[in-house]
Amino acid sequence: MVGVGAGPLECFAAALLRAGGFSADQAEQTAAILVWANLRGVDSHGVLRIPRYLEMVELGLINPAAGPRQVLGKGAVAVIDAQRAPGAVAMNLATQTAVRLSDAHGIGWCAVRAITHAGAIGYYVQQAARAGRVAIAMTASKPLMVYHGSKTEGVSTNPIAIAAPTTDPDRPLLLDMSTASVAIGKIMAAKDAGQAIPAGWGVDEQGRETTDPHKVKAVLPMAGPKGSGLSLMIEVLASVMVANPLISVALTEGGDPGGNGLVVVVDPSAFGNEFTFEVDRLRAAIKGLPLADGLDAIYLPGERGFEVMEKRSRDGIPLAQGTRSRLAALARTLNVVTPEGLA
Amino acid sequence: MVGVGAGPLECFAAALLRAGGFSADQAEQTAAILVWANLRGVDSHGVLRIPRYLEMVELGLINPAAGPRQVLGKGAVAVIDAQRAPGAVAMNLATQTAVRLSDAHGIGWCAVRAITHAGAIGYYVQQAARAGRVAIAMTASKPLMVYHGSKTEGVSTNPIAIAAPTTDPDRPLLLDMSTASVAIGKIMAAKDAGQAIPAGWGVDEQGRETTDPHKVKAVLPMAGPKGSGLSLMIEVLASVMVANPLISVALTEGGDPGGNGLVVVVDPSAFGNEFTFEVDRLRAAIKGLPLADGLDAIYLPGERGFEVMEKRSRDGIPLAQGTRSRLAALARTLNVVTPEGLA
Repeated sequence: MVGVGAGPLECFAAALLRAGGFSADQAEQTAAILVWANLRGVDSHGVLRIPRYLEMVELGLINPAAGPRQVLGKGAVAVIDAQRAPGAVAMNLATQTAVRLSDAHGIGWCAVRAITHAGAIGYYVQQAARAGRVAIAMTASKPLMVYHGSKTEGVSTNPIAIAAPTTDPDRPLLLDMSTASVAIGKIMAAKDAGQAIPAGWGVDEQGRETTDPHKVKAVLPMAGPKGSGLSLMIEVLASVMVANPLISVALTEGGDPGGNGLVVVVDPSAFGNEFTFEVDRLRAAIKGLPLADGLDAIYLPGERGFEVMEKRSRDGIPLAQGTRSRLAALARTLNVVTPEGLA
Repeated sequence: MVGVGAGPLECFAAALLRAGGFSADQAEQTAAILVWANLRGVDSHGVLRIPRYLEMVELGLINPAAGPRQVLGKGAVAVIDAQRAPGAVAMNLATQTAVRLSDAHGIGWCAVRAITHAGAIGYYVQQAARAGRVAIAMTASKPLMVYHGSKTEGVSTNPIAIAAPTTDPDRPLLLDMSTASVAIGKIMAAKDAGQAIPAGWGVDEQGRETTDPHKVKAVLPMAGPKGSGLSLMIEVLASVMVANPLISVALTEGGDPGGNGLVVVVDPSAFGNEFTFEVDRLRAAIKGLPLADGLDAIYLPGERGFEVMEKRSRDGIPLAQGTRSRLAALARTLNVVTPEGLA
């Protein structure tokens, strides 16, 4: 598999998005986070999303004409109404707003209602970490995951990401995890590969755990009641708090209620200490722990992604053949030039 | 087993703590959270802790002479130095401080350094929920849990609790979870009962998973890298941010570095909506999900504890014989009258 350079891929992604209705600025912001995910090896949140994004524009689910704007602000909290603008644009604005609030108040809490797909939310907290802040991001969406004790979807796989800067601006601590037992992409990969999945990943139509990826109707929560409980509380923080409830609406009225996001930023300098040096010390202490049998490294949150990023920045991004074909077909339809190495 | 009334038990607990060196106010605050845990069925965080608390006073690890006070405040963030005062006193002060900050700023972030055992941290967020706030609490302590990829303890079992008020002030949504795969108390119980434990709970001296509770040296994280990653980020938020790092110090210099806490409070009224009614709607939607086979109820975060609390408030708290004996012995030593039904 020949790798595609991150630069050309980002230009290509932006060109496709523009041709599909995004403004130039929306296309750039969206392409940046998609390629960031590819660079980190999180291909499920990379450029393969573009065909669906453009389909969502056609269906009116993403609205490129929307201008996300702040609708409420009190002290250190703010609410942005994204009006279904492209997710990355709304989440970037929320991150910048929370950073700005943290300048004045030590902390900023910016909720953003009516977002569309936010992508790999580690991106937003890393932006804040690059500005020297500690940041927490969460997003909420429709029921996709079993609520512990139920046989069916009751909550989403709502992710949470937390970043803290180190002395290396390119290497923050960067936790980015969903509340599900497994990424839905892994179930799709097992399906493609014709392999069984372990028990504990998902349930079938009858709500029974299954090892057949084709029978999975809903994914199971991480750590049982902890995962579904944490997901529910993210729905409260990101959705219910801004009067845009997703779960109660979807469960009682049906339909896809869209999404909401939340970015919380804290300024460590408000606490007046040598923060990044202390994070470095923590990092070194963890890296120095004795290895478990059979493993060759201990990874800090986000570190594996940074290693993949180094490699892919150098060697290019090895996109799957299916992704390449779909993007090339889309490019032909939209009269966009496909870069060499991807055609 | 005869149940002990919560009222008499709380008086008795406070009397023991006073006799062991706590001030009257410290004893009351501490007894309240211990008995709250017992009422909710979390006996591992209840009055059985009292002998150890008093031992810690004797060893100088808890300092009843300390007066926790705010040492830093900027905008919506504050830091309290607990100076090893009784944990509940410092965490109550942090909660009140964060609530007060949220009045002015919509949100309050209060970190508290050098705490001692905080008890069941759901207590603090429930206090904030009773005041109509949404609250998040975390505490950090020394290495007790395997860091994913290591064979030994690298992080603590750092818990996180999140509460949101409903229209019933006694029934908030109340998530209170540790980042470990299992409560250490369950391993102790298996030990007492001479039973094997499931794989995935803990590792032995050599870092191998064991099903023998007697061989457990360290507990495993919830959901592998997610649990240890989340625990590490709690250490960053609660400890590194206030320049009282616990993990890096313990791993490099040894010893028990004590603990830190963090309480974040958000005022839903800053967002101007019918918040508690919407939380009720969410609660109802989740309760209405179809039940998994073999289960007879779906529980919301904290709900099981509220049910136990109703029962125990009515019937008394069924303390284990070992706890009763140890407390009665302590009472004799300290010349404290043991209440009827506990002697």
